[in-house]
This record gives sequence, structure tokens and C-alpha cells, in this order.
Amino acid sequence: MRPRFPYRGWLFDLDGTVYLGERLIPGAAEAVAALREAGRRVAFLSNKPLQTRADYAAKLSRLGVPAAADDVINSSLVLARHLRGLDPGAAVFVIGEPPMIAEMRAHGFEVREDERVRWVVIAFDRTFSYAKLNTALQAVRRGARLIATNPDRTCPVEGGEIPDCAGMIAAVEAVTGHTVEAVVGKPSPIILEVALATLGVRADETVIVGDRIETDITMGKRLGLATILVLSGITRADDPRIASLAPDHVIGSIAELIERP
Amino acid sequence: MRPRFPYRGWLFDLDGTVYLGERLIPGAAEAVAALREAGRRVAFLSNKPLQTRADYAAKLSRLGVPAAADDVINSSLVLARHLRGLDPGAAVFVIGEPPMIAEMRAHGFEVREDERVRWVVIAFDRTFSYAKLNTALQAVRRGARLIATNPDRTCPVEGGEIPDCAGMIAAVEAVTGHTVEAVVGKPSPIILEVALATLGVRADETVIVGDRIETDITMGKRLGLATILVLSGITRADDPRIASLAPDHVIGSIAELIERP
Repeated sequence: MRPRFPYRGWLFDLDGTVYLGERLIPGAAEAVAALREAGRRVAFLSNKPLQTRADYAAKLSRLGVPAAADDVINSSLVLARHLRGLDPGAAVFVIGEPPMIAEMRAHGFEVREDERVRWVVIAFDRTFSYAKLNTALQAVRRGARLIATNPDRTCPVEGGEIPDCAGMIAAVEAVTGHTVEAVVGKPSPIILEVALATLGVRADETVIVGDRIETDITMGKRLGLATILVLSGITRADDPRIASLAPDHVIGSIAELIERP
Repeated sequence: MRPRFPYRGWLFDLDGTVYLGERLIPGAAEAVAALREAGRRVAFLSNKPLQTRADYAAKLSRLGVPAAADDVINSSLVLARHLRGLDPGAAVFVIGEPPMIAEMRAHGFEVREDERVRWVVIAFDRTFSYAKLNTALQAVRRGARLIATNPDRTCPVEGGEIPDCAGMIAAVEAVTGHTVEAVVGKPSPIILEVALATLGVRADETVIVGDRIETDITMGKRLGLATILVLSGITRADDPRIASLAPDHVIGSIAELIERP
């Protein structure tokens, strides 16, 4: 089995592209193995800051796609790397869950629980509270700046959806009267820049593979990557945006990335 | 001591107009007493749904302005009355504190703690949480509508400010993708309509007295009330908006509402 496409760097969306919930998309394990065997560089992208990269790697490995934490680029890693470039070692207040806080600490930030900080980091946080909103307000009143992980309105869960980071961002923006300076996850170019740097590849030799036109495909095109839309997730083959946004390739699923003998 | 102005209905803003925090504005007790003695109808308006009307009445009485709960019109009362007109007895989920919930119950609503409701009521809530945000989202996904008490970004407190209802509204709007249908407190005309009905007076025979140009004065003008700006609160005498918005009268404080012999 050989790769059908020539790209050197491969960025894969996860849910809807590599797996659906707890089920691997058929052929995903063989496709990723074939790319790696051919010397291609592979990473997995996620907007969710709820799990650690090791959690994602463990899930991928369990489902049949061997992966290490370093193969996973999620919005908490991207935020920590991006902010380390802007303001290394800064004191930060984190609206987020323990994996997000751990990622900030691992990147050298001083995570505080009060308003004496230079940055308020806003992430998808299922323990969001009025007390956190108030600390964010007091921090901004003292001059703190705002940065966030991901712009998603809701997060799909078994049988429905739950509030995602957009709720936390909107609350903080509304009470502070300030806008977040960057939301680093998809569709921001920042997550792609971190991914390209991590893989050591250039935009023009890399492809992004995803099931969402408005994030994966739009973002890839904006930064000059090739784009492959898979129809194994949320987008249907008759979606009119396929014609207008014109991904480089539209395939049924990740299985079609390889040629079978 | 006689009233200087002829209006039959009198709507007073509270903080900055009648009192400042825990201190009565000098002359307020005499001014209100003189208006009442002359047969004028007096009510006090507040955007805050944190205290009951009885709490406000007790505070006014303690500071020297005798008042009953029925003399106070706050955003929780206005929301409950307004919604009773739209959908009497409906099941509601309340993002709010116990006095807000009690007002809804007192107006015949079925207050529930789950998503099986027709309305999500959003108020200033210092116990706001992700769990409440999620219940609001699930309620809207089942068809619930949104209504809110007050649009204030923050609430002034001793030495600063804390997040107000705008934070709760923004979070719910962001995750549901729906806009609240009405925010009944100042500067909405709804609070004035409820106040006029409560006092039994018409807009053209009523004056609103307040210290905030952008709420009290703007709202009064929009509904055809006379307006009196007091300079005892947040607005300074050199504010350029005084000339452009032209309140009917600008006075130093509530004390100047009466003529002294």
C-alpha cells in the first residue's frame, strides 16, 4: 500500500476524520502506517483543551493508530507555545481544567489563582464559575491581557452538545469590555504555524485533512496548505460550500489516502 | 416646603440619586416627604435583581425615606410582571439568586432546575456556573426562549466593580446562538411601562429623576417622560452629553426638588 498523494507534511483532524467518537474510521490505521512508512511527517490536531496530549495519543494507540504525545497538537499546547513566544514565564490566571493548567506550568508559566497576573487564559472549562469570571475582571482592571484556546460554540457529546469555550470567552469579553487578542485553535493560523514548526515542514509541502469545511479547509487554504476534505464526518457530499471553497481533494474517508494493489 | 415641579408621577433612580452606597443624599428625606404630602405618586427604580423589593424598602426606611416593598420597582419584579403578560404560569429555568427565584414563584411561574422549561430567565447571578450555562443550552435546544433582567456590564461595589448580568447574557447567547428577546431593566421601555402602570400615571405627567444620562435620561426621553438629571452621582456638570441629550432640568441633587421658604 502506497500513499496516493505526494505531500511531505500531514495534519489530521481527529473526530470525524480519524475516528468517530470511540470508533476508528475503517482504513485509518493502514493509511497512517503507509504515510509513516513512506517517510511522511504526520501530526494530529485538536481544538479541545480538555484532555492532555498523552490522553489523545493513548486513545489513538488504543484504537489502532500508534501515537506519542508529541504527535498531537491541541489548543492548550498551541496556546502555551504561542504565549511563551510573546511573554515567557508570565504570571497567568487560567479559566480551564487541570490538563490546561498543567500545560501552562510545563511551558514555564506561573499559574496563579488570583488577579495578580499579566494574562488571563480562557479555555473550554466545565468548572467555569462566577468566581473565575470575577477574577478575570479584576485581572483585566489591573492591566491583564486576554488569550483563548478555541472559538467553538459547543462541543459534541454522546446524544447532543455542551457549552464550549465560546461561552467563557463571551462572558469575559462582556464584563471586561475587552476583546481577546488571539484565539489560537482552529481556524486560527496560529495552530497551523505551531503544527508546521513541530513537524519541521513548510506550508507549501503540507496538507490538512479534515471533515469540516469552515475550519479545516478554510484555515488550510488561508495559510497556503493543500486541503483534503473527507466525507466521513459532518460534511455531506452535496454541501454547496464544497464547490465554492474547492478543497484540493474530496474523498470518502481517510482510507482513500492510500492506493491498494 | 413645596415641590418645585408640577409632575404627578415621580420615578427615582436609587444609587447616586437617593443614596450613595449606605449614605442618604442630604435632603432626600425631605424632598420625598414633600412630594408625597402634595399628593404626588412616587416609586423607586433599580436594575439590580439581587435584593428583594422588601430589602430595598427596608434600606430606604432605615436611611430616613419611609418606603414599602410596593414602592420599589426592580428588574426582577419587572421581568416577572412582563413575562406573566406574555406566558402566565410557564415553566422557567432561572439563572439568578434566591430573591429572583422567589419573585418568579410569587408571580405564579413554575421554577424548575432542569431544561424542561419554556423560558430561561437570565439575571445578575453571583452563583453562575457551567452547570447553569449547560442547563440553559439544553433548554434552548428543546425550544426554550430567553429573557433577561438587566444589561449592566458590571456592578459597582465598595472599592471597585464585579461582573453583572451582561456576563451571564453573553455566555448564554454565545453557546446557544440565540439572542435574548428582551432585557427588561433600564434602559428598556419595559421597566418604565411597569412603573407607570404600578403608579397609575401617564408618561406625559411623569418625570424620571436619575444620575445616569445613558440610562435614566435616555430612557425617559424615549418614552416621553420629563427628565431631571441630578449631579450627585456619576455624571459631572461638564459632561458634554448634557447639552446634546438636554434633560428638562439639571439640578445639584434631589434636595433641590423642593422650594425652601
